[in-house]
Amino acid sequence: MDHLVEKTIRKEKIFSGKVVQLYVEDVQLPNGKTSKREVIKHPGAVAVIPITKDGKLVLVRQYRKALERVLVEIPAGKLEKGEEPFASAQRELEEETGYRAQSMRHIVSFYTSPGFADELIHLYVAEGLEKLEDAASLDEDEFVDVLEVTLEEALKMLEKQEIYDAKTAYALQYLQLRRVTGEKHA
Amino acid sequence: MDHLVEKTIRKEKIFSGKVVQLYVEDVQLPNGKTSKREVIKHPGAVAVIPITKDGKLVLVRQYRKALERVLVEIPAGKLEKGEEPFASAQRELEEETGYRAQSMRHIVSFYTSPGFADELIHLYVAEGLEKLEDAASLDEDEFVDVLEVTLEEALKMLEKQEIYDAKTAYALQYLQLRRVTGEKHA
Repeated sequence: MDHLVEKTIRKEKIFSGKVVQLYVEDVQLPNGKTSKREVIKHPGAVAVIPITKDGKLVLVRQYRKALERVLVEIPAGKLEKGEEPFASAQRELEEETGYRAQSMRHIVSFYTSPGFADELIHLYVAEGLEKLEDAASLDEDEFVDVLEVTLEEALKMLEKQEIYDAKTAYALQYLQLRRVTGEKHA
Repeated sequence: MDHLVEKTIRKEKIFSGKVVQLYVEDVQLPNGKTSKREVIKHPGAVAVIPITKDGKLVLVRQYRKALERVLVEIPAGKLEKGEEPFASAQRELEEETGYRAQSMRHIVSFYTSPGFADELIHLYVAEGLEKLEDAASLDEDEFVDVLEVTLEEALKMLEKQEIYDAKTAYALQYLQLRRVTGEKHA
């Protein structure tokens, strides 16, 4: 597939922040012409589909500065430096919802915006949720409302664009598919 | 939901490129503390799930500079300035695959990375595909291989991480769900 590759001629680092880095790259296209690519580097992230013992989905409502609005999403967060995705998913679930999962498994990973960013998100399903006694594990600078909803309620939120992001839309489809193929829960 | 809002204190434009703009914002958190947010502004995008008359899925293989690798994805592209998403989806389908759709309908829209970017992607399903006679409509600076695969073949590509992005993973689940609920195609 070498006939598709864009060779880097020059790479300039424009910005290095807490979360993202931005590069502008001059590339040589397969036809020999040159072009510019704007590339965002991101540490990667995890997201969890948490299902309670009575089959409800746990969601978090939070403010998203990039959108200047509140969204309802499955719990998620950035990977910390050197952190394994599985451990990160456990941590984010606890910090954002106050739940610990008896079982958690990886279902899929995907790049969210391959056209301009390298963010890779690892998605898990968490079951057998136990409420933690100490709320101390909740992140004090994270402001979220925790919701427990049925799949039908979540699908209505998707319709009303309260749920409006790729990983949560994927999660709802995953639960719908699981239901129609006869698996239990949500 | 005002108790979740982060107020902007200061906003600095760091970069304005062909595709993205980057801002760093000082915000006041709901607890009165301040923090910084890195925000990427993006024009938005469209993606199409194109299904051939014999029920195959049309995919494109292309190089993604942000990932430094080739991915297989459903056809997609950025919104041009002032362009309606529906027209954009028709254009991208034609430019990338050489197919025109007899019917195309919107199925969902979602933000791809609400944690740091405002990219909103509008997803369509296209059916009744007709091959265009003139390849002239293909974008000369776009280098893609066009593939036609069954859903099973696409799911294997997802397993092998040749398909590795959110919108295409969503598309495959959409087709799986459609199949098990008795709808035809793919």
